[in-house]
Amino acid sequence: MNWMREHISKPEIIASVFWIIIKIVLIYIIARIIIKIADKTITHMMVAREKSPIKIDRRRSNTISILIHNLISYTVNLVAIMLILGQVGFNLGPLLAGAGVLGLAIGFGAQSLVKDVITGFFIIFEDQFGVGDVIQIDQFKGTVEEIGIRVTRIKSWTGEVHIIPNGNIKQVTNFSTYNSIAVVDVSVAYDADIDRAMELLREIVTHVHERTENIVKTPEVLGVQMIGNSELKIRVIAECKPNTQGEVGRILNAEIKKHLDAHGIEIPYPKVVTYLKQEKVEGN
Amino acid sequence: MNWMREHISKPEIIASVFWIIIKIVLIYIIARIIIKIADKTITHMMVAREKSPIKIDRRRSNTISILIHNLISYTVNLVAIMLILGQVGFNLGPLLAGAGVLGLAIGFGAQSLVKDVITGFFIIFEDQFGVGDVIQIDQFKGTVEEIGIRVTRIKSWTGEVHIIPNGNIKQVTNFSTYNSIAVVDVSVAYDADIDRAMELLREIVTHVHERTENIVKTPEVLGVQMIGNSELKIRVIAECKPNTQGEVGRILNAEIKKHLDAHGIEIPYPKVVTYLKQEKVEGN
Amino acid sequence: MNWMREHISKPEIIASVFWIIIKIVLIYIIARIIIKIADKTITHMMVAREKSPIKIDRRRSNTISILIHNLISYTVNLVAIMLILGQVGFNLGPLLAGAGVLGLAIGFGAQSLVKDVITGFFIIFEDQFGVGDVIQIDQFKGTVEEIGIRVTRIKSWTGEVHIIPNGNIKQVTNFSTYNSIAVVDVSVAYDADIDRAMELLREIVTHVHERTENIVKTPEVLGVQMIGNSELKIRVIAECKPNTQGEVGRILNAEIKKHLDAHGIEIPYPKVVTYLKQEKVEGN
Amino acid sequence: MNWMREHISKPEIIASVFWIIIKIVLIYIIARIIIKIADKTITHMMVAREKSPIKIDRRRSNTISILIHNLISYTVNLVAIMLILGQVGFNLGPLLAGAGVLGLAIGFGAQSLVKDVITGFFIIFEDQFGVGDVIQIDQFKGTVEEIGIRVTRIKSWTGEVHIIPNGNIKQVTNFSTYNSIAVVDVSVAYDADIDRAMELLREIVTHVHERTENIVKTPEVLGVQMIGNSELKIRVIAECKPNTQGEVGRILNAEIKKHLDAHGIEIPYPKVVTYLKQEKVEGN
Amino acid sequence: MNWMREHISKPEIIASVFWIIIKIVLIYIIARIIIKIADKTITHMMVAREKSPIKIDRRRSNTISILIHNLISYTVNLVAIMLILGQVGFNLGPLLAGAGVLGLAIGFGAQSLVKDVITGFFIIFEDQFGVGDVIQIDQFKGTVEEIGIRVTRIKSWTGEVHIIPNGNIKQVTNFSTYNSIAVVDVSVAYDADIDRAMELLREIVTHVHERTENIVKTPEVLGVQMIGNSELKIRVIAECKPNTQGEVGRILNAEIKKHLDAHGIEIPYPKVVTYLKQEKVEGN
Amino acid sequence: MNWMREHISKPEIIASVFWIIIKIVLIYIIARIIIKIADKTITHMMVAREKSPIKIDRRRSNTISILIHNLISYTVNLVAIMLILGQVGFNLGPLLAGAGVLGLAIGFGAQSLVKDVITGFFIIFEDQFGVGDVIQIDQFKGTVEEIGIRVTRIKSWTGEVHIIPNGNIKQVTNFSTYNSIAVVDVSVAYDADIDRAMELLREIVTHVHERTENIVKTPEVLGVQMIGNSELKIRVIAECKPNTQGEVGRILNAEIKKHLDAHGIEIPYPKVVTYLKQEKVEGN
Amino acid sequence: MNWMREHISKPEIIASVFWIIIKIVLIYIIARIIIKIADKTITHMMVAREKSPIKIDRRRSNTISILIHNLISYTVNLVAIMLILGQVGFNLGPLLAGAGVLGLAIGFGAQSLVKDVITGFFIIFEDQFGVGDVIQIDQFKGTVEEIGIRVTRIKSWTGEVHIIPNGNIKQVTNFSTYNSIAVVDVSVAYDADIDRAMELLREIVTHVHERTENIVKTPEVLGVQMIGNSELKIRVIAECKPNTQGEVGRILNAEIKKHLDAHGIEIPYPKVVTYLKQEKVEGN
Repeated sequence: MNWMREHISKPEIIASVFWIIIKIVLIYIIARIIIKIADKTITHMMVAREKSPIKIDRRRSNTISILIHNLISYTVNLVAIMLILGQVGFNLGPLLAGAGVLGLAIGFGAQSLVKDVITGFFIIFEDQFGVGDVIQIDQFKGTVEEIGIRVTRIKSWTGEVHIIPNGNIKQVTNFSTYNSIAVVDVSVAYDADIDRAMELLREIVTHVHERTENIVKTPEVLGVQMIGNSELKIRVIAECKPNTQGEVGRILNAEIKKHLDAHGIEIPYPKVVTYLKQEKVEGN
Repeated sequence: MNWMREHISKPEIIASVFWIIIKIVLIYIIARIIIKIADKTITHMMVAREKSPIKIDRRRSNTISILIHNLISYTVNLVAIMLILGQVGFNLGPLLAGAGVLGLAIGFGAQSLVKDVITGFFIIFEDQFGVGDVIQIDQFKGTVEEIGIRVTRIKSWTGEVHIIPNGNIKQVTNFSTYNSIAVVDVSVAYDADIDRAMELLREIVTHVHERTENIVKTPEVLGVQMIGNSELKIRVIAECKPNTQGEVGRILNAEIKKHLDAHGIEIPYPKVVTYLKQEKVEGN
Repeated sequence: MNWMREHISKPEIIASVFWIIIKIVLIYIIARIIIKIADKTITHMMVAREKSPIKIDRRRSNTISILIHNLISYTVNLVAIMLILGQVGFNLGPLLAGAGVLGLAIGFGAQSLVKDVITGFFIIFEDQFGVGDVIQIDQFKGTVEEIGIRVTRIKSWTGEVHIIPNGNIKQVTNFSTYNSIAVVDVSVAYDADIDRAMELLREIVTHVHERTENIVKTPEVLGVQMIGNSELKIRVIAECKPNTQGEVGRILNAEIKKHLDAHGIEIPYPKVVTYLKQEKVEGN
Repeated sequence: MNWMREHISKPEIIASVFWIIIKIVLIYIIARIIIKIADKTITHMMVAREKSPIKIDRRRSNTISILIHNLISYTVNLVAIMLILGQVGFNLGPLLAGAGVLGLAIGFGAQSLVKDVITGFFIIFEDQFGVGDVIQIDQFKGTVEEIGIRVTRIKSWTGEVHIIPNGNIKQVTNFSTYNSIAVVDVSVAYDADIDRAMELLREIVTHVHERTENIVKTPEVLGVQMIGNSELKIRVIAECKPNTQGEVGRILNAEIKKHLDAHGIEIPYPKVVTYLKQEKVEGN
Repeated sequence: MNWMREHISKPEIIASVFWIIIKIVLIYIIARIIIKIADKTITHMMVAREKSPIKIDRRRSNTISILIHNLISYTVNLVAIMLILGQVGFNLGPLLAGAGVLGLAIGFGAQSLVKDVITGFFIIFEDQFGVGDVIQIDQFKGTVEEIGIRVTRIKSWTGEVHIIPNGNIKQVTNFSTYNSIAVVDVSVAYDADIDRAMELLREIVTHVHERTENIVKTPEVLGVQMIGNSELKIRVIAECKPNTQGEVGRILNAEIKKHLDAHGIEIPYPKVVTYLKQEKVEGN
Repeated sequence: MNWMREHISKPEIIASVFWIIIKIVLIYIIARIIIKIADKTITHMMVAREKSPIKIDRRRSNTISILIHNLISYTVNLVAIMLILGQVGFNLGPLLAGAGVLGLAIGFGAQSLVKDVITGFFIIFEDQFGVGDVIQIDQFKGTVEEIGIRVTRIKSWTGEVHIIPNGNIKQVTNFSTYNSIAVVDVSVAYDADIDRAMELLREIVTHVHERTENIVKTPEVLGVQMIGNSELKIRVIAECKPNTQGEVGRILNAEIKKHLDAHGIEIPYPKVVTYLKQEKVEGN
Repeated sequence: MNWMREHISKPEIIASVFWIIIKIVLIYIIARIIIKIADKTITHMMVAREKSPIKIDRRRSNTISILIHNLISYTVNLVAIMLILGQVGFNLGPLLAGAGVLGLAIGFGAQSLVKDVITGFFIIFEDQFGVGDVIQIDQFKGTVEEIGIRVTRIKSWTGEVHIIPNGNIKQVTNFSTYNSIAVVDVSVAYDADIDRAMELLREIVTHVHERTENIVKTPEVLGVQMIGNSELKIRVIAECKPNTQGEVGRILNAEIKKHLDAHGIEIPYPKVVTYLKQEKVEGN
């Protein structure tokens, strides 16, 4: 409307209309170029990732590329349309103000939603854990069942499904990346011969290692971890396949108990020294 | 009002009025199209969901489509009206500023309300849990009674109703998706024969399995879970139908106790070794 | 003031004044219509609610309708006045900026107040609990005395009044909606006959049921809930009228104790096995 | 300054000056009216409150009316002055921007201050507690000494003064509104006659009631609250005047102990069953 | 620059320049007046405070007045300068935008600093505690060493200095305002004569009172506070000078122990009833 | 560009250009003056601090002055450049909007960084603790190794280095400012003579004081701190050099133990009174 | 478009076009210069860091320089393009408003992401810990595996990988910077000779030191750390190589136990004094 405000002659009108059309075309071309470049970059990144040692499965990487493509494409087109309308002479104030208020409303009310999606994107992109991994998030431990863009589902070994919004994932502990260590603290009495007990334990765990597939290295007998109230605690550790430490621990428990018994080294009961007194008042 | 500001001749007034009318019509048409497209998309999404394996009941999906339709329709119409008023020459500044302040007020004061509704929408849409499922949210465990757009109602097994705003649902544990595991740790004395005890337990649980409908697989005797102060703990687990682990556990408890007794394997009491001393001071 | 800025002839002034008047009238009419529609909608909603199974008392629904009516009416009138002033040529910038700063101040400082009122409104509207219900909010349990628009008052059974701002109500547990379950765990010795004990308990609780009005169903004897250190715990549950579980539990406690005694099944004391040793050092 | 921008003739200047003066007068009158209406409303509300059953002392209600009057009066006058300056042609941008930044700074830095004052106002206005009441806020319990507009002072019974900003008052527990309940759990041995013990307790508490002014109703003997490890716990409750439950509890403790002793019902010591074994290893 | 935009004649230029000068002078005068009024108000408030019963030391009140004076003076002058520059025709947009961004940065990053200062100001102004008082803030208890405008320093009795930013002071407990209460719970055996024990305690504490300066009132023997597992707890309280409750408690402990011994009332050791059994399995 | 909008004659152009140049020069001069004044103020403050009793090392104060100088200098120059560009006719909207968005992004994302730096500045400026002091922040106790502008490094006595962002420092406890108090609670039997025990303790601690350099005052024997289950606890305190309380406590422990033994006052073992019963059921 | 609004003569058009071109060139040059200076500064800083004693590996410093270069380069170019478009006459309002809303959305939703990156940058730049260091963040302790720009990966000694977003790293404890201290508290009986025990311990630890490579200094026997219920605890500390305190502690435990046994100093069992009473009621 601006270009009608004054007494303007025909040629000037034509010039200005021509000028506006040029600007619109320019806006369109630039928008196209930005989207093209963005697409190229995404493809490039995804290809790079696929070649990396940590494999990211193709289906998931496709989901992400399409997501990013759509996001950029919608945003650029929207801005381009608004720029063009602005050139033609539309008063876009109301639209923008509306968008601003809406943006704020989204910002305030939906920040946890936005945070879920952003964190979800990074969990997938950084490959923090995969479906089938055993992980722990806060007190929730289990096997990953699904990594969604908004929530992650974990199935605990007792059958519950924990559904956790990604934005609430502060720390992740992944149990499936490396071999686990099974830790067994064996109690022996104060009067046991420490060196003989450790020697015996070494023999036992070596035998266990030979018969147990899940143990990947000969277990170590570390030494006297603690002098407790009634017993010495000798620590035995065994490197085993990921998430088999429970099973390996149970085997070690059983074998150590049996062999220590066989060699006459007992696991001590709690002990207490009692000083007996006959109460004087009620005498005897 | 702008178009009156200068000495403008008649034809120019007509031209500009005509121009304004064209823009208004354009705004109207675009608004219609946006709403139509949005409706199509919603219908499409809902149909897609209904075909998916996880059934979402029709009544609920209708609620959601109407909710989304209304939201989009009101927003688009409002923006269109404001754009048209802007073209006619209304000074919409006050209205917009008012909306902005109102938006902020809503943003600040009602962010938990907005968050409730958004989370509620996703709980329904992602089908995290359904009415009748046994779930746990924080310390509140029970059967889902109602999933509302703002609050979720859970009825605990002792009869209380927990009412939880959706925005406060940080993690959900769903107990009704998969079979549960009943875990029973059986204590046996240090001097019991571990292998015989485990063999006996295996027999017992197999018999229990045969007579108990809720157990879906022969329970497993895992091994020596822990060497306690006075006893060995042998772990027994039984896969059972969802949410029957309490009942199954009770049956296992009773049967194991009876049969161990019958075979002379006792559950040990806490033990302590006492060194007696006669107090010297008060002599004897 | 704008319309004076240029050399404008009389007819143009008249035209523009006429135009302004039309716009003012239009604003006035639209404002009236919006308020009318809002009122209709409120009345409609309230009537709908009153017909619903969960009765909402009339006085309270009146309070809410008036509250909402006033809110909408003030807002629409205010915006209309500002739009009219804007048409007449007032510079409303300062007013708006002032409103904006005030809005921000309210937003920041009073967000918990706004949140209280919004949550209060929903507690009443969704009928989460009513006056006289026994509810628990965080650690505060008691009978609801008053549900206000800003705070809720709960009277505990020991006589304290807990005053809780509605915005701090994160989860509500309502004890008055359904029947309660009284849970009694009965301890019996390891050497007791489990089947006989459970049979006996069943007889006892059936007799109790017959003589106790508050128990609505024959109580169930569930089984061996836990194998403790020195005793078996047999769980007994009794469905009773809401909030009578304390009383019912006490009756069950007394009756079960008396009858078990009468049948020679004793509640075991904690047990410990002591290995006596004479301390060597100080010899004998 | 705007009205000088163009070649304007004398009569037009006069007209526009006249127009401005009319607007200024209008602003002034409207400001007056708003303040008057606000004052009327405040007075009306205060009068209404004073007639209400819960008495609010006059001095405090005066403080509040003056506070609100000043707040409204300053705000309206400030806005009026700014509107007038805007009409005269001052460029108020800098002032407004300054106010905006200042408002933000206050908003961010002082939100807890604003919150203190708002909450303080509601504590006084809703009469949640009064000076002299015994209340508890979080872990701080004591007698209210002063309810200020920013902080509340509580004096604990051991002499400390707790000073709590009103904005930190999340939940208030008021002990002075209703009668209190003193709760005494009496332990009796497993082999005691439950019915006789309860009968005896009923007699005791009736006697205590007669001799104790603070007990307002005959105390009740509820029944067997819990079956503990070595004792039965019988619960006795006594309704007493507010905040006398400590004293009443002590009287009940002493009287019940004395009378149970007199009737041969003893309070049991912790009990344990000991299985003696002679340690084999070190023989005899 | 605006006033050059059109063909304007000389007299008009002169008129407008004259107009601008008048406005500048006006701004200057108003700024002066505001500062003067503010100063008067501060002086007035400080004088009023000094006359109040709770003395605020002069040095500190001076610090505050200067602080407030500077704050107001800088702000008013800054705004005045900006208003004047705006009249002369400077484009202050960049400056204002810069100030806005800076304001936001301060708002976000330094809100805890601003909060410290505001809270510090109120601690001093409301005289919540003074140097030398014994106070507790969260878990930090000690003697106040310094109340700064940003941090408060407390010296604990074991010599540590706790430095706490004022903004983190949520609740303050002041131990130095009123007399303290020393609380001593005396254990006596179940078979002790309660009335005689309380009578004896009354005599003891009266004697202690006479010989102890810090006790301000004859201590009270309240009664049987609790029936413990093996003992009755009789509560004795003594009002003493602020912060002497530790010392008074120690004196009471020693005196009560000595006198109870002298009168043959013993403090009971923990008691347990043991049922002896000969283990059958390993027989004898 | 504004000054080209109308038909303006040459002299007017010259006049306006001249006017612009004057304003630019003015901006430049004012910017210079502000920076100069700020520098002077900083130097002045630093000199004042150096004269204060609490020495701040010169290197650190230099760091701070340069930091502040740069901050002010960059800000003032930036604003000046923008003001000048604004006068010349640049459209700075985009730049400002960009700065605003950037400012917001920094505000939101980096508020903890800004907070770190601000708190760090105050820790240094207020000299809350120095390198070599033993301090505690939350659960982290150790010797300060480095106070940085963003993080503080503390070395614990077991060799770990704790790195804590300054913004997370809520409360600091400084152990190196004053002498410490070593607290030893000595247990004596109920039947010990309290007065004699305290007399003996006084002698012991006086001897220890004479032989221990780190104790700065004769330790005090405070009295009977607590009457425990089996013993009286007599509290002994010793003022010692900062952070030697551990060592002094160990010396006191050893000496008190030795001397009490020598004088026949024994430290009592836990005591229990046992009522023996022969279990009736299994009789004898 | 502005420059077409009026009847302007050719020379003026040419002049204004010329003026615009000059401004565009100026913007371009300034943008170039800013980027150049920024690059120089980065290179300078990185070189300075590489010379510092704490080595930062070259690959990482390259990553950071490129990151910063790109950030500055993109920002400056973007602003320059927008300034140029603004000069040519584009209406950039929509673009800017869009950017503003987008900025807000990022600000709200992604603040934790931005915080992660900023904190990550500082962890790398300040070299708080390096790959291979043993650190603890909250409850997660392990060896650093990777320090990313968004997350840090720690491998615990039992094989789990903890993935922690950098923004959640509040405090870091680094165990690899200095030698560690192994702490062993040796229990001896009350009647042991303290001086002889400490002398003996000194001999033992000296021998251990000679045979243990990881101990870097002769361990110290500090003294009687605590007088426990049944034993004296003598503290022994040994400075050892970082993260070997577990191993060294185990060696010390074993050696001290063996040698104390050999010298007849026994580690005491818990002790209790028992007063025997024959229960009167059931007499004998």
